[in-house]
Amino acid sequence: MRAGIIGSGSWATALAKILTDNGQQVHWWIRSEDTIRHMQQRHHNKHYLTSVYFDTHQLQLSSQLQQVVANSDLLVLAVPSAFLEEVLQVLPPDALQHKKVISAIKGLVPQSNLFINEFLEDGFGLPMEQYFTITGPCHAEEVANEKLSYLTFSGVNTDATQKVADLFTNSYLQTTVNNDVMGVQLAAVLKNIYAMGAGIAHGLDYGDNFLSVLITNSFREMQHFLEKYTAWAGPAHMPVMQHNYNASAYLGDLLVTCYSLHSRNRTFGNMIGKGYSVKAAQLELNMVAEGYYASKCVFEINHEIGAYMPVARAVYAILWEQLNAEEAFLALEKGFV
Amino acid sequence: MRAGIIGSGSWATALAKILTDNGQQVHWWIRSEDTIRHMQQRHHNKHYLTSVYFDTHQLQLSSQLQQVVANSDLLVLAVPSAFLEEVLQVLPPDALQHKKVISAIKGLVPQSNLFINEFLEDGFGLPMEQYFTITGPCHAEEVANEKLSYLTFSGVNTDATQKVADLFTNSYLQTTVNNDVMGVQLAAVLKNIYAMGAGIAHGLDYGDNFLSVLITNSFREMQHFLEKYTAWAGPAHMPVMQHNYNASAYLGDLLVTCYSLHSRNRTFGNMIGKGYSVKAAQLELNMVAEGYYASKCVFEINHEIGAYMPVARAVYAILWEQLNAEEAFLALEKGFV
Repeated sequence: MRAGIIGSGSWATALAKILTDNGQQVHWWIRSEDTIRHMQQRHHNKHYLTSVYFDTHQLQLSSQLQQVVANSDLLVLAVPSAFLEEVLQVLPPDALQHKKVISAIKGLVPQSNLFINEFLEDGFGLPMEQYFTITGPCHAEEVANEKLSYLTFSGVNTDATQKVADLFTNSYLQTTVNNDVMGVQLAAVLKNIYAMGAGIAHGLDYGDNFLSVLITNSFREMQHFLEKYTAWAGPAHMPVMQHNYNASAYLGDLLVTCYSLHSRNRTFGNMIGKGYSVKAAQLELNMVAEGYYASKCVFEINHEIGAYMPVARAVYAILWEQLNAEEAFLALEKGFV
Repeated sequence: MRAGIIGSGSWATALAKILTDNGQQVHWWIRSEDTIRHMQQRHHNKHYLTSVYFDTHQLQLSSQLQQVVANSDLLVLAVPSAFLEEVLQVLPPDALQHKKVISAIKGLVPQSNLFINEFLEDGFGLPMEQYFTITGPCHAEEVANEKLSYLTFSGVNTDATQKVADLFTNSYLQTTVNNDVMGVQLAAVLKNIYAMGAGIAHGLDYGDNFLSVLITNSFREMQHFLEKYTAWAGPAHMPVMQHNYNASAYLGDLLVTCYSLHSRNRTFGNMIGKGYSVKAAQLELNMVAEGYYASKCVFEINHEIGAYMPVARAVYAILWEQLNAEEAFLALEKGFV
């Protein structure tokens, strides 16, 4: 199985490390020629996880997306959700025929609010049988250091999903498999919003006691939204209607994103809590925090769902409606149990 | 209502601060005459939360337990579970007649493995109607700094419990009330074991990714044990048989105990993970980590319950059977999802 990776951020780089450590050849699309040149000469990504060295014999680097896609049977999507549409627009509609596509994106497509599989089905006719997701609590920085981590692979067919997962399994990476493709994607989107909230609370100088209560209430809110969403979407859209909330792809990912100092969403939120504007935080951190877009997507989706989600609502209002963070949290405090 | 506090550790001191901030007079039993003298002269506890200053007009300090008990209508127990039996043995069997007793102890009585209410019923005939618990994610250090925190008060009668909770409610302390007296006590015991496990993992140099998976699996294990325990004990012993796991007294307290640097159990576990012996860790930290005793109590109770709890079992084996921590965790890793 010829593997391809699309994207050159820290998560893409970590996934390239895992695959090449497992003996795979990797076709790797990287937008910047300069980054490619540097990697060929210096054997590492000059911008992300710079300590990870690659045997470049295992890499076919290219800035030509069509070429990378044509040469791969299995494609890992690892670009921020906000850039996915722009990146893939050079591909013809039949480019993904017979390909397996694995989304490592923890977000929905902004504006259209589509799930990644819906976007790929609309644009490229990709059937669910060829679509898989990678979720779970896994900061790329710790993969770089080969700290034991757990990833969850989801797909509608268990055997096919297990085969994909096996490509990524090794001594520092344990994998589990389930069929809850839609549920894990929603959980991954939601946890970025709550991590933003945790960061804001930290920036506002709340302590560990409060943070644990905020995250507990966020976890309950996540479940409430998923229950309402599942009932609303029905079995055609959500074939797995029972979600295993107490597994690492749900609670685990929420925890690491809310608590780890590696978390970009938490860091971004922290700056907002300390009074930075969204624009200033983006410039300062020089990156996209998925939770920023996620809060808008979920806010819009929830128009139809009507879930009671005061934490996600507050994060949205702080980020997109310029609501004062301190005031928003004063209002939130009252309702926690 | 005349309030009394038994104990002079950090949690006792934090509770004394809350009550006196709320305008209460507090009868306060402190074992050491020297600590009492210091507090009278310097207005603070010389050993714990030293930054908290008291108006000593609000305090009746005494090393005579019988006197403190006699002068109080409502008694807060805040000594480590391992010392409770020894501390209360000076009291006659009728000492708690007509008193309300609030347990702030997050443990069972070692050796007998009794819940605090069972111990008080056996020794003093205390009925459940006069018994309440304080649980929830609340490190004393943050109460000292008046960081917003949440406490859960539990009792069989909601109105009476609410009245007790009201005594503790203020601008930095939000309270909630439930009837799940037995469930919250078990959760409080279990979370200390899991925090010990989190500390051990940290000491063994696992990273944030793994920690989130460990805590997620611990949370599921906590629920599994409580379900099995509840079914085994039946409604006579566990009148509330549905536990609200996603509330701050359950998940919240687990999180703060596992993640906060204020957590004594986590700190203790960390030293064990780094290779200290139990004895050396105890000497170095100069305190009792509740999780040490809790792991033995729960291990023994689980002989009857038969819950599958590999994390708690591993912590017990590391602390009490000298199992090598690294080996224990290598075995644990495989089973996580």
